Amino acid sequence: MSAYGTQQGAWRMPGVDPTAWTDIDQLVRFAQVAERGLLHFLFLPDFPALREDIERESVMMALDPLLTLTAIARETKRIGLVATGATTFAEPFTIARQFKALDIISHGRAGWNAVPMSDPTVAANFSHPLPPRQEKYERLHETVQIVQALWGSWGRDAWVHDQASGRFADAAKVQPVNLRGRHVASRGPLPIPPSEQGQPVIFQAGGGSAGLEVAGRYANGVAGAVWTIDDARAQRVALREAAARNGRDPDEVKFFAGVMPTIAPTRRAALDRRIALTEGKFEERVAYLQQMLGIRLDIGHLEQPLSPQQLAAARPSPHDPRSKNALKIAREGWSLRDVIAHGVIDYHPVIAGPGVAVADHMQEWFEAGAADGFWIMIDVYQDGMDAFADEVVPILQRRGLFHTEYESATLRDHLGAPAQYGLDPRLVG
Amino acid sequence: MSAYGTQQGAWRMPGVDPTAWTDIDQLVRFAQVAERGLLHFLFLPDFPALREDIERESVMMALDPLLTLTAIARETKRIGLVATGATTFAEPFTIARQFKALDIISHGRAGWNAVPMSDPTVAANFSHPLPPRQEKYERLHETVQIVQALWGSWGRDAWVHDQASGRFADAAKVQPVNLRGRHVASRGPLPIPPSEQGQPVIFQAGGGSAGLEVAGRYANGVAGAVWTIDDARAQRVALREAAARNGRDPDEVKFFAGVMPTIAPTRRAALDRRIALTEGKFEERVAYLQQMLGIRLDIGHLEQPLSPQQLAAARPSPHDPRSKNALKIAREGWSLRDVIAHGVIDYHPVIAGPGVAVADHMQEWFEAGAADGFWIMIDVYQDGMDAFADEVVPILQRRGLFHTEYESATLRDHLGAPAQYGLDPRLVG
Repeated sequence: MSAYGTQQGAWRMPGVDPTAWTDIDQLVRFAQVAERGLLHFLFLPDFPALREDIERESVMMALDPLLTLTAIARETKRIGLVATGATTFAEPFTIARQFKALDIISHGRAGWNAVPMSDPTVAANFSHPLPPRQEKYERLHETVQIVQALWGSWGRDAWVHDQASGRFADAAKVQPVNLRGRHVASRGPLPIPPSEQGQPVIFQAGGGSAGLEVAGRYANGVAGAVWTIDDARAQRVALREAAARNGRDPDEVKFFAGVMPTIAPTRRAALDRRIALTEGKFEERVAYLQQMLGIRLDIGHLEQPLSPQQLAAARPSPHDPRSKNALKIAREGWSLRDVIAHGVIDYHPVIAGPGVAVADHMQEWFEAGAADGFWIMIDVYQDGMDAFADEVVPILQRRGLFHTEYESATLRDHLGAPAQYGLDPRLVG
Repeated sequence: MSAYGTQQGAWRMPGVDPTAWTDIDQLVRFAQVAERGLLHFLFLPDFPALREDIERESVMMALDPLLTLTAIARETKRIGLVATGATTFAEPFTIARQFKALDIISHGRAGWNAVPMSDPTVAANFSHPLPPRQEKYERLHETVQIVQALWGSWGRDAWVHDQASGRFADAAKVQPVNLRGRHVASRGPLPIPPSEQGQPVIFQAGGGSAGLEVAGRYANGVAGAVWTIDDARAQRVALREAAARNGRDPDEVKFFAGVMPTIAPTRRAALDRRIALTEGKFEERVAYLQQMLGIRLDIGHLEQPLSPQQLAAARPSPHDPRSKNALKIAREGWSLRDVIAHGVIDYHPVIAGPGVAVADHMQEWFEAGAADGFWIMIDVYQDGMDAFADEVVPILQRRGLFHTEYESATLRDHLGAPAQYGLDPRLVG
């Protein structure tokens, strides 16, 4: 997100300072509210390029995620701090050092979302062309293994710091890793001691069969783009099977289902908030909705419901899991603008309404075995994060579904992820 | 430095918490004291490898310099924040983005020390072998130019942020840089607006003729390793000539002479402090001093002055500019241990004594035209930085040689460096 919030339209909303774009104070405040809401971690994506139509759209990812999380680390105490670090154009040693430094600075709250880069807009900013898909994933696997080995290169109890004898460390326990893959290599050791959680936690938010393999081997947290409980359950099962195939206990890997809440006293107010936040995006969304429903729609009739003829002719696309929901909403008689405002073509289920609607969604999915937790894209702008912390969280707490304080100090412990130090021995040899 | 301080022996000193190694609170405190002393900038070197004999030596550079400076940026207001970012194994886009992010977070206080990597211990941590010297400098030149162009890729007045019309930016003023060298390339633009100082300030602390050429073309601040006023004057002149050769005003480039103060009420107390801080290093230093003086010295006689026979036989090495000073100190009758404690084989002049001795040194050099300012390696541990701020600075202020408050808000203005945005037009075409 930018300091305006998580939505393209946030910078134009009433009460928003238009010069706040890169205001780190504001990002810290959002993080502190999330911590007040006892969320287990924050996640910052990365997109090292400018892709927005900047005449009308604000730039979402201006600052470097690791530097941003460092600032947040210093002004929060418990919340986990996860960032994407793409492996395609980065050196394993640099990734290992920066994430481990964040882990030390945050006292054991860092997580690394290990993904390849795929976007040609990003690739053009770097010195070499985008490698073929196969090679990108080879490099990703090599990088994760080298990074983990570097994290463990300074032995857990190597740091002696005995002032009386003058022995600083047990040199026998600080060893090079000497790993060389086809694409990347590092000797090590890293000059950084263990953090409170040993080493950062690995996340994976890529998707696809190659991403599933990465998740199954290395990750303790995985974000899924899922539209229905059935889809989510299936993805969670597939993830757990991938973990088991790699010799791991499936419970080591938590599956987080995406959800996009917009919280307001009524559904109408929540839809209006979403409309304001996405203003200017309706034209392209109407075009997209046409394809999903297999009918023509008229951008000139945004305020009217779909006609009986349109509804009768609609054929939800079998290629898009969101199509059925889009038709269901349209049949409820909402205007074309409101249908879109329901988020029928967003990447995750949108819950627009009072806090209890969000809590109900989360409870239903959780109890159906669709998720271990949620990857929550709150429509942060001004009070968006506060609404989640102050309205949704207390409901979940009253229902016995959410903790009432942080029981642990590190991200690893927040997730119930097993201790790890260095490369997972199950991956070696 | 580490949180113990700047000296290998600091971690064993009385009152030092042996577990403080990576304590970022302590690093922030050192920075705050430096800011209280109105220093113009902090400088963090980088050494992405473990080179210490860690059985007995603490690790000096554990954490990443950019993340460390981000933490410091949030808890200081005026002091400049300069870090080394080596170009040999890094992508220009990544360097540009991270330093610019620090510049935004610090509100215009970032500086980049642009150097190549040369150490094989460092190179072994990366995926490719150390390139030949020529190629390293080619890559450095290409990288600096691409980084500067990226810094200017978001035009100074491109960011419109007009909430009423919905115009976020003037897209015509946000342009790709499309630079491709022999070794590195980037398309851009960077997704980051101008900072308060436009873009970070370039430093150079390399040395040699190739380093001088880099400094003359790009730098606004240069650190020199100089042992005498004559040497310093000559280096400063050479630097100014290099700037002029590149079409720049020589006053755009400030020359900082290195100095290493250890402040204590008496010279004796200062020497004792230095002895304690470098304990365990005497054996190798005696061996080194032997070579400088061309005589045999006995590590078993550390407490005794050199004998008249030794002093008579001594022949200062013509290859080491420090040799004459070493012999001068030895002739004053100090013990072998004290001769070394005077810093005769350190990289910069050591001033061990009361604050006034440090102030005298700085005044003498400054008034002799040997330096525009000083690159001060304070022996920080506990009160080392405080002693400089509280004892040396007031003397310099009383003598009218140092400011009594920050007159400006950005590093560029602190240095009196000219405005720059994007690649210097004198370098283009």
